[in-house]
Amino acid sequence: MSQKQNRRDFIKTAGVLTAAAMILNPNDLFARTPVEQRRKGGSKKMQLDWENFTGQMKYTFTISGCSRTSTPIVITRITWDGYKGYGEAAMPPYLGETQESCNQFLLKARPVLDKFDNPFVLDDILPAIDKVTTNNCAAKASVDIALHDLIGNIFGQPWWKIWGFNPEKTPYTSYTIGYDADDDILNKKIEDAAWAKIIKVKLGIGDAQDKRMIKMIRSKLNTPICIDANQGWKDKYYALDMINWLSERNVVMIEQPMPKAWLDETAWVTERSPLPIIADEACQRLTDIPHLKGVYSGINIKLMKCTGMREAREMISLAQDFRMKLMVGCMTETSVAISAAAQIAPKVTWADLDGNILIANDCFDGMKLVNGKVTLFDKPGLGLTKKPDIINL
Amino acid sequence: MSQKQNRRDFIKTAGVLTAAAMILNPNDLFARTPVEQRRKGGSKKMQLDWENFTGQMKYTFTISGCSRTSTPIVITRITWDGYKGYGEAAMPPYLGETQESCNQFLLKARPVLDKFDNPFVLDDILPAIDKVTTNNCAAKASVDIALHDLIGNIFGQPWWKIWGFNPEKTPYTSYTIGYDADDDILNKKIEDAAWAKIIKVKLGIGDAQDKRMIKMIRSKLNTPICIDANQGWKDKYYALDMINWLSERNVVMIEQPMPKAWLDETAWVTERSPLPIIADEACQRLTDIPHLKGVYSGINIKLMKCTGMREAREMISLAQDFRMKLMVGCMTETSVAISAAAQIAPKVTWADLDGNILIANDCFDGMKLVNGKVTLFDKPGLGLTKKPDIINL
Repeated sequence: MSQKQNRRDFIKTAGVLTAAAMILNPNDLFARTPVEQRRKGGSKKMQLDWENFTGQMKYTFTISGCSRTSTPIVITRITWDGYKGYGEAAMPPYLGETQESCNQFLLKARPVLDKFDNPFVLDDILPAIDKVTTNNCAAKASVDIALHDLIGNIFGQPWWKIWGFNPEKTPYTSYTIGYDADDDILNKKIEDAAWAKIIKVKLGIGDAQDKRMIKMIRSKLNTPICIDANQGWKDKYYALDMINWLSERNVVMIEQPMPKAWLDETAWVTERSPLPIIADEACQRLTDIPHLKGVYSGINIKLMKCTGMREAREMISLAQDFRMKLMVGCMTETSVAISAAAQIAPKVTWADLDGNILIANDCFDGMKLVNGKVTLFDKPGLGLTKKPDIINL
Repeated sequence: MSQKQNRRDFIKTAGVLTAAAMILNPNDLFARTPVEQRRKGGSKKMQLDWENFTGQMKYTFTISGCSRTSTPIVITRITWDGYKGYGEAAMPPYLGETQESCNQFLLKARPVLDKFDNPFVLDDILPAIDKVTTNNCAAKASVDIALHDLIGNIFGQPWWKIWGFNPEKTPYTSYTIGYDADDDILNKKIEDAAWAKIIKVKLGIGDAQDKRMIKMIRSKLNTPICIDANQGWKDKYYALDMINWLSERNVVMIEQPMPKAWLDETAWVTERSPLPIIADEACQRLTDIPHLKGVYSGINIKLMKCTGMREAREMISLAQDFRMKLMVGCMTETSVAISAAAQIAPKVTWADLDGNILIANDCFDGMKLVNGKVTLFDKPGLGLTKKPDIINL
């Protein structure tokens, strides 16, 4: 844990008088916050800053209707009273947000934060941020995540602990094998996924291509597979046939088989499916959940869809009240947003938190995968450490 | 937390400013934990202790079918790593729990707590405590409350802040005027309630007695009134007539007008009522709420019914998702349980948290009513201070 390191360095390097001077500031020691984040008696006004960042992807990424090699991101930082917290908006182009729209949103968010004396009243701050515009969910999440990191740093506690979750209950993350028409490239991707305890495959491109993917994976690996059809199946009979075919090949769940508006057809499939059917595109925010009860077996929570950690926590409660299964997912994101999403991982059956390991230039260290398992540390806030020389923020 | 112990050892062994260390000790200042609760390097095993306590009531207390002058209470204490937290079971006889049943439950709870290394994983500990028996809700709450106080003391933060609630949003508490057949005694009670910004009156004794109460109050005070009928009205037409009569006399809401099993009749009344209809006996725990949607306008959350603060927090979320109104209530309780319930007061429309001021021998200081308003302080845990010489625990 970093505070031990800090203390050791402190004990080693500090002279006695210097030591005494440092002890006089109680917050430095109690908060267990990394040295760079120690309280410096800074402003009692929240200061929001941000930096546009282009995430370089290790592989060309293809889902139904879109291929790309980089992803637009905005990293946010909120400082208060000498503490700081980092946040992130990750904005895959097909969802409609851009760095420009995020920057515009954050300019409008600043005067909203100015109305509050401190970051603690999330119950008031986040609804006010949400009211700034109708959409901009990733931009809103970048504020929410930074506030959570900030508060966790002030409390000196990680959010999984603040929420009372058991950090040992995290699942293995699924690791996504992306579609490729080239057999050699696809085989290389399959080999690269050999470490994973559970694999995610995005289907819905076409019957032949979909079955080719599964067969090629199964020729090399017996790892359980989660399917994400990304609304790709346009016929309920076909969907059910395909799900039955998949269930015989160690597939364990199906995400968003049909278009999000097809509630009756999805309910028909879910009722007959041997595998759980999980809502992704159909479940954006908390208020969507009551409409999905009886239609899907569960929901995939993504911070960039639902405006952040506080709403995600509420979605967990409501889905649990409705006896729905839980999954946490991500976009292609840095360790900032992945570490934020990881805080709820103890509550989910499936985690798809590989976004940061798909990025070549991740600007933070945070949540780690240990043998594929989402691993939470007892570090304040989101447990982030900024890597040198990647971003200026 | 080990780093604190290390730090204190360091301060001691460094041989610098030992005398000043008592003042300079950062934990004392930042954590804001009462002196008696300072970390003493205690056991890393949770230790549960308790003491039976008889709350002496300032007035004879009468609701439908029961009069009494004292109330059985058990005060609990959980210690861990030198920190401590207090809890409480308040057990009015008509609810079926007793000091004896509570003591028996707590004996069974001890080995359950022993299975956990620390108090933080409330998400695992409290379901395990809940599984010990089917009922014993107040006994369960006494464990939940002590754990929350303990964790808040360790974090150095109050629960309203951990939950992100705005402490300024607390309502005025209602103050209960109990029934009395004697006009002089009743008039004295009404005079004693002159400070209150909102009054609670328990009706359902009989038409003449009920109307006498309201008329006598209105002859002296114009304070808004909350009615608690305690399931006393056995006819939906009578109930609606009475509600209309009350609504013309500055009554603002009606709690539990009819028997809790009368869902259809209650829905009929709620649909026609000019005032919100709140479930009390009908709403014990989280799982009751879905059945009450569309039947009542809102729910009254009481820690002694719902097993404690964590489930209460979940009930707030679900009721809010269902657009139901919220109230927080209490039994006759000491400042321990009242301060616990007060943590959720920022989220409710009505608070009925006068239990501690009805007790003559309250053994703790905690939440205060300031001009009748539930007032939360920025003190760790539940913000409790034990009064001297009342309990031994």
